[in-house]
Amino acid sequence: MENPVMSSLNLAALTETFREHREQFINEWREFLTFPSISADPRHDADCRRCAEWLVKHLKKIGFDEASLIETEGKPLVYAKRAGKAGPRVSFYGHYDVQPVDPLNLWGTPPFEPQLREGRLYARGAQDNKGQLFYFLKAVEVLIKKNALNVPLSLFIEGEEESSSIGITRAIPSLREKLSSDILMVCDTGTERVDAPTVTMGLRGIVFLTATLKGITKDLHSGHHGGLAPNPATELARLVATLHDGTGKIAVADFYEGVQAVTDADRKLLATGHFDEKVYREQIGVPPVGGEKGIAPAERRGFRPTIEINGFHSGYDGPGSKTIIPASAYTKITARLVGKQDPKLSLERIIKHLEAHAPKGLTLEISESGVGGPAFLANAGSPVIAKAKAVLDELSGGKTVFSWEGGSIPVVASLAIAAGAEPLLVGYGLEEDNIHAPNESFSLQQFEQGFLYAGLFLSRLA
Amino acid sequence: MENPVMSSLNLAALTETFREHREQFINEWREFLTFPSISADPRHDADCRRCAEWLVKHLKKIGFDEASLIETEGKPLVYAKRAGKAGPRVSFYGHYDVQPVDPLNLWGTPPFEPQLREGRLYARGAQDNKGQLFYFLKAVEVLIKKNALNVPLSLFIEGEEESSSIGITRAIPSLREKLSSDILMVCDTGTERVDAPTVTMGLRGIVFLTATLKGITKDLHSGHHGGLAPNPATELARLVATLHDGTGKIAVADFYEGVQAVTDADRKLLATGHFDEKVYREQIGVPPVGGEKGIAPAERRGFRPTIEINGFHSGYDGPGSKTIIPASAYTKITARLVGKQDPKLSLERIIKHLEAHAPKGLTLEISESGVGGPAFLANAGSPVIAKAKAVLDELSGGKTVFSWEGGSIPVVASLAIAAGAEPLLVGYGLEEDNIHAPNESFSLQQFEQGFLYAGLFLSRLA
Repeated sequence: MENPVMSSLNLAALTETFREHREQFINEWREFLTFPSISADPRHDADCRRCAEWLVKHLKKIGFDEASLIETEGKPLVYAKRAGKAGPRVSFYGHYDVQPVDPLNLWGTPPFEPQLREGRLYARGAQDNKGQLFYFLKAVEVLIKKNALNVPLSLFIEGEEESSSIGITRAIPSLREKLSSDILMVCDTGTERVDAPTVTMGLRGIVFLTATLKGITKDLHSGHHGGLAPNPATELARLVATLHDGTGKIAVADFYEGVQAVTDADRKLLATGHFDEKVYREQIGVPPVGGEKGIAPAERRGFRPTIEINGFHSGYDGPGSKTIIPASAYTKITARLVGKQDPKLSLERIIKHLEAHAPKGLTLEISESGVGGPAFLANAGSPVIAKAKAVLDELSGGKTVFSWEGGSIPVVASLAIAAGAEPLLVGYGLEEDNIHAPNESFSLQQFEQGFLYAGLFLSRLA
Repeated sequence: MENPVMSSLNLAALTETFREHREQFINEWREFLTFPSISADPRHDADCRRCAEWLVKHLKKIGFDEASLIETEGKPLVYAKRAGKAGPRVSFYGHYDVQPVDPLNLWGTPPFEPQLREGRLYARGAQDNKGQLFYFLKAVEVLIKKNALNVPLSLFIEGEEESSSIGITRAIPSLREKLSSDILMVCDTGTERVDAPTVTMGLRGIVFLTATLKGITKDLHSGHHGGLAPNPATELARLVATLHDGTGKIAVADFYEGVQAVTDADRKLLATGHFDEKVYREQIGVPPVGGEKGIAPAERRGFRPTIEINGFHSGYDGPGSKTIIPASAYTKITARLVGKQDPKLSLERIIKHLEAHAPKGLTLEISESGVGGPAFLANAGSPVIAKAKAVLDELSGGKTVFSWEGGSIPVVASLAIAAGAEPLLVGYGLEEDNIHAPNESFSLQQFEQGFLYAGLFLSRLA
């Protein structure tokens, strides 16, 4: 099938090639997953770099003209480039860092010792994003080998997506030339269902902070001091309770500035997703009753901002009771942003709210605060979206859906603007993958689907 | 100074004897402190028993006619008895169990390897209650040796004061004959200041529970699920916030039933304590602004109930951010009771309140709940209190104060009633002792004062 002139591959050929190389792909993917590249934890800085270096070597091996580390203010960025013969210039964004792994005791097997069980590979990052990134790379590898990658392609794989994207974000101005492209592909999103490949039309933005109440010199005896000392745990609970009103609406002043109304066209595409409350309850254990009352679940997720408590810790954490007033209490908070909400302003507004509602007697400290990125909205009328839909319809028998995801890939909006590119977000994640949770995994079936989508789409571009 | 007939010891003789035996006392006290008798943690059950057995051996050695373990539904009770020649029958209550030790990393030296530094002995239990219990025993030992312990004396030293007192509480009916006495002495309280020995006139009662919000199958991605799933951390914070109103008053229905008004006589004795807000702030790091607005601090501590959060834990607890909706959240709660508040009813009312305010979608689970005991109030007009005041005035040059402490010794009220005895609570604890916190310690100076009080008081009784 090798050919010195431009060629393209059809679905049958791609499927056959995948099955031939299946074992090799899995072995390499496993090796990639052994790096504990947890970007949120500075103790893993060296692991992140080793992972990035492994990736550079791998990209050279599979046929990129150049591959290297670009140093940033944060973790190194993996950059790779391959010249093309014709067609639109494609850039690709992904990340090699992963989420923390605690609570470690809930993992069936160690998070960085990948295990294949019943058609799924288990490891931290198995899906998010190492797995999805890897099916894309394997598709590119096959196209290069078969002389079927005709378009110019450049990769930007960062190491801080799970903690802030600070390195790549600050490097964007100096990357403008390298980034310049027509399509920005991202494979870091989910499918609505296993048989319904999904184009993600929107992502939420994100800001984050840690709030601590302190001032007490030590844990106090709750009898001697109960009614005297202000209780940091109680006061922090009260402070958290002020963030929303009784209807679930965010109570931070001016927070909804920039939130846009859902259009009829949005609602029509959104309906392709068929959000099912019963299925949600079965998968998650609880009904979808979070967020604002009176707004449909899929709209709440895709078109409304949130403020979520990701962690709250204070005082005794052992068996039985311990009669103390804890010396301090802290909470980790993230807010998801939509539409044109300004991330910097939104963060400032939350901090201002916390300060205004801080309890008497204790000291409020804000730390670990920052801006991930703004929300992102794709252009429903674009020809790139239409081309992707055609490929996905071919793969699924016309079952493509359009979705506004609640998650964030902080830097996507900024990268697309700097690249001058049309973003295209298609991914194969499923709820059962347990990303950000213990026992993350990715099914070989979804890995193969992702490979086929990426291969077919790239092959059709020229 | 030995004498075959009844004798009494004066302050000079007691002081001299203490200084002669100082080293021996400290060595024995250190040995007592090496047992990790943490009653709240079942992993230390065997340590509790070994500690109790050590105590029995020690009591036999220092001259009690009999000493033994009484098995209970919980930890074994240490019982000892010495027949008397004359005077009122005295019983003594103390506890050999200690608080948990976490956070362990804040201890300067290991909690069960006692260290003497700058006149203080550092260890978990150094003061509460092993230290205070031990100066009483050493005073008794000296009186026995000098033939100066004339009154009948029985000891009841339990092993669950820090977790529930369930064993001794349930054993009370079967102990009635052994308990029968005229005065019930307890050395498990504090002094207002180092130069102001203190008679504790009241203690608060206590009930406890753990409340958990659950139902979500795993930690969820806060982007994919923010606005869909109810957030257990946020919801538990809101639930905790409903426990008090904006003025710090407890918002649980009917909770104040049984709370008694402070009388003018109470206020007069209370004023001997001179609660100093400036000193409090210096010692504790924060002003005494907890509890109900519009009530003086010493009255809030001694005469008003509280509901305190002793622990609140949910979600991520590492560096940086982790974008999850935690699968669950829990809080450990204790309430202090005053006057005639019924403990069982009070606990039921809190649980009912939590259930009534529980969030939609999540499951509220109440566990580890129980009743410590009711509040205790001493009789200000009693001759026992007058006799104690005379001894304390002799020791301090007339600086005795009367205090209503905020703490609880759950079983004291029940024991006094069953014994038919007048309770007498005098103790030498100070804020700087860090009881219930890392780096607990007790000064040798306070140990000696406690020894002198116990020796002088017992010696004067006949």
